[in-house]
Amino acid sequence: MRFEHETLPQAVRFASGEAGAMVAESVRRLGGSRVMVIAAPAEADLARRVTAGVAVAVRHDEVAMHVPVEVARRARLAADRADVLVSVGGGSTTGLAKAVALSTGLPIVAVPTTYAGSEATNVWGLTEGARKTTGVDDRVLPRAVVYDAALTLSLPVAMSVASGLNALAHCVDAMWGPRADPIDRALAGEGIRALAAGLPRVVAEPGGLPGREQVLYGAYLAAVAFASAGSGLHHKICHVLGGRYGLPHAQTHAVVLPYVLAFNAPAAPDAEERIAGAFGTDTALAGLQRLRAVLDAPRALRDHGLAEADIDDAVPEILAAVPKHNPRPVTAAGLRRLLDAAWRGADPVHDEETTT
Amino acid sequence: MRFEHETLPQAVRFASGEAGAMVAESVRRLGGSRVMVIAAPAEADLARRVTAGVAVAVRHDEVAMHVPVEVARRARLAADRADVLVSVGGGSTTGLAKAVALSTGLPIVAVPTTYAGSEATNVWGLTEGARKTTGVDDRVLPRAVVYDAALTLSLPVAMSVASGLNALAHCVDAMWGPRADPIDRALAGEGIRALAAGLPRVVAEPGGLPGREQVLYGAYLAAVAFASAGSGLHHKICHVLGGRYGLPHAQTHAVVLPYVLAFNAPAAPDAEERIAGAFGTDTALAGLQRLRAVLDAPRALRDHGLAEADIDDAVPEILAAVPKHNPRPVTAAGLRRLLDAAWRGADPVHDEETTT
Repeated sequence: MRFEHETLPQAVRFASGEAGAMVAESVRRLGGSRVMVIAAPAEADLARRVTAGVAVAVRHDEVAMHVPVEVARRARLAADRADVLVSVGGGSTTGLAKAVALSTGLPIVAVPTTYAGSEATNVWGLTEGARKTTGVDDRVLPRAVVYDAALTLSLPVAMSVASGLNALAHCVDAMWGPRADPIDRALAGEGIRALAAGLPRVVAEPGGLPGREQVLYGAYLAAVAFASAGSGLHHKICHVLGGRYGLPHAQTHAVVLPYVLAFNAPAAPDAEERIAGAFGTDTALAGLQRLRAVLDAPRALRDHGLAEADIDDAVPEILAAVPKHNPRPVTAAGLRRLLDAAWRGADPVHDEETTT
Repeated sequence: MRFEHETLPQAVRFASGEAGAMVAESVRRLGGSRVMVIAAPAEADLARRVTAGVAVAVRHDEVAMHVPVEVARRARLAADRADVLVSVGGGSTTGLAKAVALSTGLPIVAVPTTYAGSEATNVWGLTEGARKTTGVDDRVLPRAVVYDAALTLSLPVAMSVASGLNALAHCVDAMWGPRADPIDRALAGEGIRALAAGLPRVVAEPGGLPGREQVLYGAYLAAVAFASAGSGLHHKICHVLGGRYGLPHAQTHAVVLPYVLAFNAPAAPDAEERIAGAFGTDTALAGLQRLRAVLDAPRALRDHGLAEADIDDAVPEILAAVPKHNPRPVTAAGLRRLLDAAWRGADPVHDEETTT
């Protein structure tokens, strides 16, 4: 047992229907008296309600995916009157608040409305043209997070499932990411347990809170574990498929995950045991596949824009990015078989022969 | 689901046999160039080896149980030349470093040699005469912790078992302490898993590292979970038995724990499921009792200094301290039956009638 684990300071408040009171309390504890509220136009009303109890100095609604540097620059200018940032929205909104905090040092109170998880990490990202830069800085870690599952009720079921499976992929990859340690695996296991319990309930009853609460809680743990462990094989594959062939983010993750699990789990007994335990099934793969069936998750990469001919092209790209301590050595032939099975939507199997 | 959870910033390094390198790295990251080493005389040689790679300005070896204010005062005076504190030892040594940090703000690198867990919390304690004052202050939270299981090899088996069962009690009580939340319960479950795996190995092979590593890791998680959740029924009972009747700390915890588990678990299904899952047994109590049998743990309070007549006296004292959200209401009659069973060493049973 040899590891380094950094715990990050954050006050997490979880209270459905009470975001307003929790935001007010969080701002008060930070000593804030001039709040900058960051929320996209679609969330303007929501943000107004959630920040009704704090002294707002400025409201900023220019939010864009991947945080373009120009958007960040304008937000920083608007922040000059503020002493606390309150972000209300998904990953792009939290990301913009982080960009402001990165240069101003202002503390963030994050109020997430999706399962993206950015609020639980010290990772920032900015794009200039097509080029995305990311970094790690403790100044961008939100000092407080307010989780109010009632705010996620308007997230459509399909998007909830996609976002929830994305969180599940964070948990699975956190089991064997380059810096994965037992604490990450324990938190990721708890995240899987919560996501597996919550997602079917969200599908069955989209307007009910208990399922939403479980998924939101699971997504938080997923982000904490994944940020600590770093990207594993799964995220390296999806990054290439998304970036090089324009495949849709959520669907790609949903399709690829069982194949990576089938590939790695036999060589990662601790991960296998924890994932199976979290799902309450005999094997990790059985648990994931049962959940995917309930959620009617996407099945094959060929249904989502990957051409069969792209596989040979993708293999060396992915191979170059695979973390060197992946539980199983990844060969070109093994990776090609994995991608081929994912392309066809074949049953992923725990079989040494099929994958190496 | 409604909770507040505060994560505390700490760099945890876990590497058996590498304490020296890890301490040097920790001091370097804190920018320390004048280290004050705090270690009791018994640990002087150990401390010297562990701090061989850092620039030591002062070595301080006056350490005393419960951190008397006079001892703390002298340590603070000795700290005036230092910019980083390195503590090497058990709870009293860590506690003294915390007392220095409380008034000086100096960062602590803690190197624990027992399973006490103080290194993972922001709780400090000082005694003046017979009066102990405790408090919570983020300045006393060690900024870095170096866990080197090789340093615990000299801890005798009996003391290792007592200290390990004390950590186990932290985990169990963290399931229903006054501020217990799902994150605490997940960490406590992982702690139980590690302690249950490690303690029998320490007994079977006291000179082996794998068991020691598991127990040290479990004790860390136990402390994190317990500090967040706060004292539950178990610790309130043991506090009165120890403070009022002078019962020995470790034995009292070891005896009382199964009775509290039998009392609370039927009313705390999440805790019951997590504890049973961590032990890998059908019920939480079965897991604890199996472990206690393997460890030959103490069985009855009458063997450790409690007079039968003390039970009636203890009941109102304990009752006044019971957290109001204990999973099951605690009545005088129920508490008397619990204490009576623990006094006799009777089988603790999941039985409504016996305990309420």
